[in-house]
Amino acid sequence: MIRLGVLISGRGSNLEAIAAAIERGELEARIEVVISNRAEAAGLEHARRRGIPAVVLPSRGLDRETYDQMLLDELAKWRVDLICLAGYMRLLSASFIRAYPMRILNIHPSLLPAFPGLDAQHQALAYGVKFSGCTVHFVDENIDSGPIVLQAVVPVLDQDTVESLSARILAEEHRIYARAIAIVGSGKYRLEGRRVIFEPDPAQNNPG
Amino acid sequence: MIRLGVLISGRGSNLEAIAAAIERGELEARIEVVISNRAEAAGLEHARRRGIPAVVLPSRGLDRETYDQMLLDELAKWRVDLICLAGYMRLLSASFIRAYPMRILNIHPSLLPAFPGLDAQHQALAYGVKFSGCTVHFVDENIDSGPIVLQAVVPVLDQDTVESLSARILAEEHRIYARAIAIVGSGKYRLEGRRVIFEPDPAQNNPG
Repeated sequence: MIRLGVLISGRGSNLEAIAAAIERGELEARIEVVISNRAEAAGLEHARRRGIPAVVLPSRGLDRETYDQMLLDELAKWRVDLICLAGYMRLLSASFIRAYPMRILNIHPSLLPAFPGLDAQHQALAYGVKFSGCTVHFVDENIDSGPIVLQAVVPVLDQDTVESLSARILAEEHRIYARAIAIVGSGKYRLEGRRVIFEPDPAQNNPG
Repeated sequence: MIRLGVLISGRGSNLEAIAAAIERGELEARIEVVISNRAEAAGLEHARRRGIPAVVLPSRGLDRETYDQMLLDELAKWRVDLICLAGYMRLLSASFIRAYPMRILNIHPSLLPAFPGLDAQHQALAYGVKFSGCTVHFVDENIDSGPIVLQAVVPVLDQDTVESLSARILAEEHRIYARAIAIVGSGKYRLEGRRVIFEPDPAQNNPG
Protein backbone atom coordinates (compact mmCIF):
# COMPACT_ATOMS: atom_id res chain seq x y z
CA MET A 1 0.00 0.00 0.00
CA ILE A 2 1.65 3.23 -1.21
CA ARG A 3 1.19 6.14 1.20
CA LEU A 4 0.65 9.30 -0.85
CA GLY A 5 0.81 12.99 -0.01
CA VAL A 6 -0.72 15.29 -2.63
CA LEU A 7 0.18 18.98 -2.91
CA ILE A 8 -2.28 21.31 -4.60
CA SER A 9 -2.86 25.03 -5.15
CA GLY A 10 -6.22 24.93 -6.93
CA ARG A 11 -8.95 22.56 -8.02
CA GLY A 12 -6.62 19.56 -8.09
CA SER A 13 -8.39 17.64 -10.82
CA ASN A 14 -5.51 15.17 -10.88
CA LEU A 15 -6.02 14.62 -7.17
CA GLU A 16 -9.61 13.63 -8.01
CA ALA A 17 -8.40 11.27 -10.72
CA ILE A 18 -5.90 9.61 -8.38
CA ALA A 19 -8.54 9.20 -5.67
CA ALA A 20 -10.96 7.73 -8.22
CA ALA A 21 -8.35 5.24 -9.48
CA ILE A 22 -7.78 4.11 -5.89
CA GLU A 23 -11.52 3.73 -5.31
CA ARG A 24 -11.88 1.69 -8.50
CA GLY A 25 -9.13 -0.63 -7.23
CA GLU A 26 -6.78 0.31 -10.10
CA LEU A 27 -4.12 1.75 -7.81
CA GLU A 28 -3.07 0.17 -4.52
CA ALA A 29 -2.40 3.35 -2.63
CA ARG A 30 -3.87 5.59 0.00
CA ILE A 31 -3.89 9.39 -0.02
CA GLU A 32 -2.76 10.12 3.54
CA VAL A 33 -3.02 13.88 3.23
CA VAL A 34 -3.75 16.68 0.78
CA ILE A 35 -1.91 19.91 1.48
CA SER A 36 -2.71 23.21 -0.18
CA ASN A 37 -0.72 26.43 0.05
CA ARG A 38 -3.93 28.33 -0.70
CA ALA A 39 -6.94 28.19 1.64
CA GLU A 40 -9.36 28.77 -1.23
CA ALA A 41 -8.16 25.77 -3.29
CA ALA A 42 -11.27 23.89 -4.42
CA GLY A 43 -9.39 20.61 -4.17
CA LEU A 44 -9.46 20.84 -0.36
CA GLU A 45 -13.22 20.48 -0.34
CA HIS A 46 -13.10 17.63 -2.86
CA ALA A 47 -10.63 15.81 -0.60
CA ARG A 48 -12.69 16.30 2.54
CA ARG A 49 -15.79 15.03 0.74
CA ARG A 50 -13.87 11.81 0.04
CA GLY A 51 -12.78 11.57 3.68
CA ILE A 52 -9.16 12.49 2.91
CA PRO A 53 -7.40 14.74 5.47
CA ALA A 54 -6.95 18.16 3.89
CA VAL A 55 -4.53 20.65 5.39
CA VAL A 56 -4.01 24.31 4.54
CA LEU A 57 -0.50 25.65 4.98
CA PRO A 58 -0.62 29.23 3.69
CA SER A 59 2.55 30.17 1.85
CA ARG A 60 1.93 33.89 1.47
CA GLY A 61 4.79 36.01 2.79
CA LEU A 62 7.03 33.05 3.62
CA ASP A 63 10.34 32.45 1.91
CA ARG A 64 10.77 29.12 0.17
CA GLU A 65 13.08 27.48 2.74
CA THR A 66 10.85 28.41 5.68
CA TYR A 67 7.70 27.24 3.93
CA ASP A 68 9.20 24.03 2.64
CA GLN A 69 10.36 23.12 6.17
CA MET A 70 6.74 23.55 7.33
CA LEU A 71 5.67 21.28 4.48
CA LEU A 72 8.30 18.67 5.40
CA ASP A 73 7.18 18.72 9.03
CA GLU A 74 3.54 18.22 8.00
CA LEU A 75 4.33 15.43 5.53
CA ALA A 76 6.46 13.65 8.13
CA LYS A 77 3.44 13.41 10.44
CA TRP A 78 1.59 11.44 7.79
CA ARG A 79 4.57 9.21 6.92
CA VAL A 80 4.07 9.47 3.16
CA ASP A 81 6.16 7.37 0.76
CA LEU A 82 5.53 9.40 -2.34
CA ILE A 83 4.57 13.02 -2.96
CA CYS A 84 2.41 13.95 -5.96
CA LEU A 85 2.17 17.51 -7.18
CA ALA A 86 -1.27 18.20 -8.66
CA GLY A 87 -1.38 21.77 -9.81
CA TYR A 88 0.95 22.88 -7.00
CA MET A 89 2.08 26.31 -8.14
CA ARG A 90 5.30 26.77 -6.16
CA LEU A 91 8.83 25.64 -6.89
CA LEU A 92 10.18 23.22 -4.29
CA SER A 93 13.49 24.02 -2.61
CA ALA A 94 16.56 21.86 -3.02
CA SER A 95 16.38 20.78 0.61
CA PHE A 96 12.78 19.61 0.18
CA ILE A 97 13.70 17.61 -2.91
CA ARG A 98 16.70 16.04 -1.13
CA ALA A 99 14.37 14.90 1.67
CA TYR A 100 12.36 12.78 -0.82
CA PRO A 101 14.90 11.60 -3.42
CA MET A 102 13.09 10.18 -6.47
CA ARG A 103 9.89 10.22 -4.48
CA ILE A 104 8.26 13.39 -5.80
CA LEU A 105 6.19 13.28 -8.99
CA ASN A 106 4.69 16.05 -11.08
CA ILE A 107 2.44 16.06 -14.10
CA HIS A 108 2.82 18.65 -16.85
CA PRO A 109 0.45 19.32 -19.77
CA SER A 110 2.96 18.98 -22.61
CA LEU A 111 5.33 16.46 -24.12
CA LEU A 112 8.38 17.59 -22.20
CA PRO A 113 11.02 18.84 -22.94
CA ALA A 114 8.73 20.86 -25.23
CA PHE A 115 6.81 23.71 -23.56
CA PRO A 116 7.93 23.68 -19.93
CA GLY A 117 6.60 26.28 -17.52
CA LEU A 118 3.29 28.07 -17.50
CA ASP A 119 0.54 27.93 -20.13
CA ALA A 120 1.96 24.86 -21.84
CA GLN A 121 -1.18 24.31 -23.91
CA HIS A 122 -1.10 27.90 -25.14
CA GLN A 123 2.59 27.53 -25.94
CA ALA A 124 1.88 24.37 -27.96
CA LEU A 125 -0.91 26.00 -29.96
CA ALA A 126 1.13 29.13 -30.62
CA TYR A 127 4.12 27.07 -31.80
CA GLY A 128 1.89 25.13 -34.16
CA VAL A 129 2.73 21.55 -33.16
CA LYS A 130 0.50 18.81 -34.55
CA PHE A 131 0.75 16.64 -31.41
CA SER A 132 1.01 17.49 -27.75
CA GLY A 133 0.29 15.58 -24.57
CA CYS A 134 1.32 15.27 -20.96
CA THR A 135 4.26 14.06 -18.94
CA VAL A 136 4.61 12.52 -15.47
CA HIS A 137 8.15 13.14 -14.27
CA PHE A 138 10.28 13.03 -11.16
CA VAL A 139 10.78 16.47 -9.67
CA ASP A 140 14.29 17.82 -9.55
CA GLU A 141 15.59 21.28 -8.79
CA ASN A 142 14.75 22.77 -12.17
CA ILE A 143 11.37 23.50 -13.72
CA ASP A 144 9.69 20.52 -15.39
CA SER A 145 13.06 18.88 -15.97
CA GLY A 146 13.31 15.60 -14.03
CA PRO A 147 13.40 12.06 -15.49
CA ILE A 148 10.20 11.07 -17.30
CA VAL A 149 8.06 8.19 -15.98
CA LEU A 150 5.20 8.23 -18.50
CA GLN A 151 3.91 10.38 -21.34
CA ALA A 152 0.72 10.37 -23.37
CA VAL A 153 0.11 11.94 -26.78
CA VAL A 154 -2.91 13.77 -28.17
CA PRO A 155 -3.43 15.34 -31.60
CA VAL A 156 -3.67 19.11 -31.95
CA LEU A 157 -6.56 19.87 -34.30
CA ASP A 158 -6.84 22.81 -36.67
CA GLN A 159 -9.92 24.11 -34.86
CA ASP A 160 -8.43 23.73 -31.36
CA THR A 161 -8.56 26.48 -28.77
CA VAL A 162 -6.58 26.47 -25.53
CA GLU A 163 -9.71 25.14 -23.83
CA SER A 164 -10.38 22.25 -26.21
CA LEU A 165 -6.71 21.21 -26.29
CA SER A 166 -6.45 21.45 -22.49
CA ALA A 167 -9.51 19.23 -22.06
CA ARG A 168 -8.09 16.59 -24.41
CA ILE A 169 -4.76 16.62 -22.56
CA LEU A 170 -6.43 16.57 -19.14
CA ALA A 171 -8.23 13.32 -19.95
CA GLU A 172 -4.81 11.76 -20.60
CA GLU A 173 -3.35 13.29 -17.43
CA HIS A 174 -6.05 11.59 -15.43
CA ARG A 175 -5.21 8.29 -17.10
CA ILE A 176 -1.42 8.26 -16.75
CA TYR A 177 -0.84 9.84 -13.34
CA ALA A 178 -2.27 6.85 -11.45
CA ARG A 179 -0.28 4.45 -13.65
CA ALA A 180 2.92 6.38 -12.99
CA ILE A 181 2.28 6.31 -9.23
CA ALA A 182 1.82 2.54 -9.40
CA ILE A 183 5.11 2.10 -11.27
CA VAL A 184 7.13 4.35 -8.98
CA GLY A 185 5.42 3.08 -5.84
CA SER A 186 6.19 -0.51 -6.79
CA GLY A 187 9.88 0.31 -7.22
CA LYS A 188 9.89 -1.77 -10.41
CA TYR A 189 11.97 0.60 -12.47
CA ARG A 190 15.56 1.63 -12.79
CA LEU A 191 17.32 4.73 -14.04
CA GLU A 192 19.78 4.57 -16.95
CA GLY A 193 21.06 8.12 -17.05
CA ARG A 194 17.79 10.04 -17.30
CA ARG A 195 15.86 7.11 -18.79
CA VAL A 196 13.26 5.50 -16.56
CA ILE A 197 13.27 1.82 -17.58
CA PHE A 198 10.45 -0.39 -16.35
CA GLU A 199 11.33 -3.73 -14.81
CA PRO A 200 8.47 -6.12 -15.37
CA ASP A 201 7.56 -8.52 -12.62
CA PRO A 202 9.72 -11.65 -13.19
CA ALA A 203 6.75 -13.78 -12.15
CA GLN A 204 4.83 -12.39 -15.12
CA ASN A 205 7.65 -13.14 -17.52
CA ASN A 206 8.08 -16.71 -16.27
CA PRO A 207 4.60 -17.91 -15.49
CA GLY A 208 5.76 -21.55 -15.43
CA MET B 1 2.06 19.06 -61.22
CA ILE B 2 4.43 20.30 -58.51
CA ARG B 3 7.99 20.87 -59.74
CA LEU B 4 10.38 19.76 -56.97
CA GLY B 5 14.06 20.37 -56.36
CA VAL B 6 15.62 18.11 -53.73
CA LEU B 7 18.84 18.99 -51.90
CA ILE B 8 20.89 16.18 -50.37
CA SER B 9 24.28 15.61 -48.76
CA GLY B 10 24.17 11.83 -48.28
CA ARG B 11 22.06 8.79 -49.06
CA GLY B 12 18.85 10.83 -49.28
CA SER B 13 16.47 8.13 -48.14
CA ASN B 14 13.67 10.69 -48.04
CA LEU B 15 14.43 11.50 -51.68
CA GLU B 16 13.82 7.82 -52.43
CA ALA B 17 10.55 7.88 -50.48
CA ILE B 18 9.34 10.98 -52.34
CA ALA B 19 10.26 9.46 -55.71
CA ALA B 20 8.48 6.23 -54.76
CA ALA B 21 5.32 8.11 -53.70
CA ILE B 22 5.32 9.87 -57.09
CA GLU B 23 5.77 6.56 -58.94
CA ARG B 24 2.89 5.02 -56.97
CA GLY B 25 0.67 7.93 -58.02
CA GLU B 26 0.26 9.15 -54.41
CA LEU B 27 1.89 12.50 -55.08
CA GLU B 28 1.28 14.58 -58.19
CA ALA B 29 4.75 16.02 -58.51
CA ARG B 30 7.94 15.66 -60.50
CA ILE B 31 11.46 15.82 -59.14
CA GLU B 32 13.09 18.17 -61.65
CA VAL B 33 16.56 17.98 -60.15
CA VAL B 34 18.51 16.54 -57.23
CA ILE B 35 21.45 18.65 -56.10
CA SER B 36 24.14 17.45 -53.71
CA ASN B 37 26.88 19.53 -52.14
CA ARG B 38 28.96 16.34 -51.87
CA ALA B 39 30.07 14.34 -54.91
CA GLU B 40 30.05 11.08 -52.94
CA ALA B 41 26.41 11.36 -51.82
CA ALA B 42 24.81 7.97 -52.48
CA GLY B 43 21.52 9.67 -53.26
CA LEU B 44 22.96 10.98 -56.55
CA GLU B 45 23.25 7.46 -57.91
CA HIS B 46 19.77 6.54 -56.67
CA ALA B 47 18.38 9.59 -58.49
CA ARG B 48 20.18 8.79 -61.74
CA ARG B 49 18.92 5.22 -61.59
CA ARG B 50 15.39 6.61 -61.50
CA GLY B 51 16.13 8.91 -64.45
CA ILE B 52 16.16 12.06 -62.31
CA PRO B 53 18.77 14.72 -63.22
CA ALA B 54 21.40 14.71 -60.44
CA VAL B 55 23.82 17.61 -60.13
CA VAL B 56 26.87 17.96 -57.90
CA LEU B 57 27.67 21.47 -56.70
CA PRO B 58 30.63 21.05 -54.33
CA SER B 59 30.40 23.40 -51.37
CA ARG B 60 33.85 22.84 -49.94
CA GLY B 61 35.78 26.08 -49.41
CA LEU B 62 32.92 28.34 -50.50
CA ASP B 63 31.26 30.80 -48.14
CA ARG B 64 27.54 30.42 -47.66
CA GLU B 65 26.44 33.42 -49.75
CA THR B 66 28.60 32.42 -52.72
CA TYR B 67 27.49 28.81 -52.58
CA ASP B 68 23.82 29.60 -52.12
CA GLN B 69 23.91 31.90 -55.17
CA MET B 70 25.27 28.96 -57.19
CA LEU B 71 22.43 26.84 -55.83
CA LEU B 72 19.85 29.50 -56.73
CA ASP B 73 21.23 29.75 -60.27
CA GLU B 74 21.04 25.97 -60.70
CA LEU B 75 17.53 25.71 -59.26
CA ALA B 76 16.34 28.55 -61.49
CA LYS B 77 17.36 26.54 -64.55
CA TRP B 78 14.96 23.78 -63.51
CA ARG B 79 12.12 26.16 -62.60
CA VAL B 80 11.25 24.38 -59.36
CA ASP B 81 8.17 25.39 -57.33
CA LEU B 82 9.19 23.78 -54.09
CA ILE B 83 12.54 22.83 -52.56
CA CYS B 84 12.81 19.77 -50.30
CA LEU B 85 15.77 19.26 -48.03
CA ALA B 86 16.51 15.56 -47.60
CA GLY B 87 19.50 15.21 -45.33
CA TYR B 88 21.05 18.42 -46.67
CA MET B 89 23.70 19.22 -44.09
CA ARG B 90 24.22 22.96 -44.64
CA LEU B 91 22.37 25.96 -43.28
CA LEU B 92 20.71 28.02 -46.00
CA SER B 93 21.45 31.74 -46.14
CA ALA B 94 18.79 34.36 -45.56
CA SER B 95 18.98 35.44 -49.19
CA PHE B 96 18.34 31.87 -50.36
CA ILE B 97 15.33 31.56 -48.07
CA ARG B 98 13.97 34.90 -49.24
CA ALA B 99 14.16 33.68 -52.84
CA TYR B 100 11.70 30.85 -52.04
CA PRO B 101 9.36 32.23 -49.40
CA MET B 102 7.35 29.40 -47.76
CA ARG B 103 8.56 27.14 -50.54
CA ILE B 104 11.37 25.27 -48.75
CA LEU B 105 10.59 22.19 -46.65
CA ASN B 106 12.77 20.18 -44.32
CA ILE B 107 12.18 17.00 -42.36
CA HIS B 108 13.66 16.50 -38.91
CA PRO B 109 13.73 13.27 -36.86
CA SER B 110 12.09 14.58 -33.68
CA LEU B 111 8.87 16.17 -32.50
CA LEU B 112 10.05 19.75 -32.81
CA PRO B 113 10.54 21.98 -30.86
CA ALA B 114 12.07 19.10 -28.87
CA PHE B 115 15.56 18.04 -29.93
CA PRO B 116 16.52 20.37 -32.78
CA GLY B 117 19.93 20.11 -34.38
CA LEU B 118 22.17 17.10 -34.81
CA ASP B 119 21.63 13.59 -33.45
CA ALA B 120 17.99 14.18 -32.58
CA GLN B 121 17.33 10.48 -31.97
CA HIS B 122 20.27 10.27 -29.58
CA GLN B 123 19.07 13.42 -27.82
CA ALA B 124 15.59 11.90 -27.40
CA LEU B 125 16.93 8.64 -25.96
CA ALA B 126 19.31 10.45 -23.61
CA TYR B 127 16.53 12.74 -22.36
CA GLY B 128 14.33 9.73 -21.69
CA VAL B 129 11.17 10.71 -23.56
CA LYS B 130 8.52 8.02 -24.04
CA PHE B 131 7.47 9.28 -27.50
CA SER B 132 9.40 10.85 -30.31
CA GLY B 133 8.72 11.24 -34.02
CA CYS B 134 9.42 13.46 -36.98
CA THR B 135 8.46 16.89 -38.25
CA VAL B 136 8.08 18.38 -41.73
CA HIS B 137 8.46 22.14 -41.45
CA PHE B 138 9.00 25.22 -43.53
CA VAL B 139 12.60 26.37 -43.47
CA ASP B 140 13.32 29.76 -41.98
CA GLU B 141 16.57 31.40 -40.99
CA ASN B 142 17.02 29.48 -37.74
CA ILE B 143 17.76 25.81 -37.20
CA ASP B 144 14.72 23.51 -37.33
CA SER B 145 12.45 26.37 -36.33
CA GLY B 146 9.98 27.16 -39.12
CA PRO B 147 6.19 26.56 -39.07
CA ILE B 148 5.23 22.89 -38.85
CA VAL B 149 3.31 21.25 -41.72
CA LEU B 150 3.03 17.68 -40.40
CA GLN B 151 4.33 15.56 -37.55
CA ALA B 152 4.19 11.85 -36.79
CA VAL B 153 4.66 10.14 -33.44
CA VAL B 154 6.43 6.90 -32.53
CA PRO B 155 6.88 5.27 -29.11
CA VAL B 156 10.33 5.07 -27.56
CA LEU B 157 10.77 1.57 -26.14
CA ASP B 158 12.80 0.60 -23.09
CA GLN B 159 15.08 -1.58 -25.20
CA ASP B 160 15.60 1.02 -27.94
CA THR B 161 19.01 1.95 -29.28
CA VAL B 162 19.71 4.95 -31.49
CA GLU B 163 19.53 2.56 -34.45
CA SER B 164 16.18 0.98 -33.60
CA LEU B 165 14.58 4.33 -32.75
CA SER B 166 15.99 5.94 -35.90
CA ALA B 167 14.55 3.15 -38.05
CA ARG B 168 11.10 3.52 -36.47
CA ILE B 169 11.18 7.28 -37.03
CA LEU B 170 12.50 6.94 -40.59
CA ALA B 171 9.50 4.84 -41.60
CA GLU B 172 7.27 7.73 -40.49
CA GLU B 173 9.47 10.29 -42.25
CA HIS B 174 8.98 8.41 -45.50
CA ARG B 175 5.22 8.45 -44.94
CA ILE B 176 4.69 12.11 -44.04
CA TYR B 177 7.15 13.94 -46.29
CA ALA B 178 5.20 13.15 -49.47
CA ARG B 179 1.93 14.13 -47.78
CA ALA B 180 3.41 17.44 -46.65
CA ILE B 181 4.65 18.16 -50.17
CA ALA B 182 1.15 17.53 -51.51
CA ILE B 183 -0.39 19.92 -48.99
CA VAL B 184 2.11 22.71 -49.55
CA GLY B 185 2.22 22.16 -53.30
CA SER B 186 -1.57 22.41 -53.51
CA GLY B 187 -1.54 25.73 -51.65
CA LYS B 188 -4.52 24.51 -49.58
CA TYR B 189 -3.30 25.83 -46.26
CA ARG B 190 -3.03 29.11 -44.48
CA LEU B 191 -0.82 30.44 -41.71
CA GLU B 192 -2.31 31.69 -38.43
CA GLY B 193 0.77 32.99 -36.65
CA ARG B 194 3.02 29.93 -36.81
CA ARG B 195 0.12 27.48 -37.16
CA VAL B 196 -0.27 25.78 -40.52
CA ILE B 197 -4.02 25.26 -40.94
CA PHE B 198 -5.21 22.98 -43.71
CA GLU B 199 -7.98 24.20 -45.96
CA PRO B 200 -9.93 21.26 -47.27
CA ASP B 201 -11.08 21.28 -50.84
CA PRO B 202 -14.53 22.98 -50.87
CA ALA B 203 -15.64 20.49 -53.53
CA GLN B 204 -15.02 17.67 -51.06
CA ASN B 205 -17.02 19.41 -48.34
CA ASN B 206 -19.96 20.08 -50.61
CA PRO B 207 -20.22 17.04 -52.82
CA GLY B 208 -23.79 17.95 -53.79
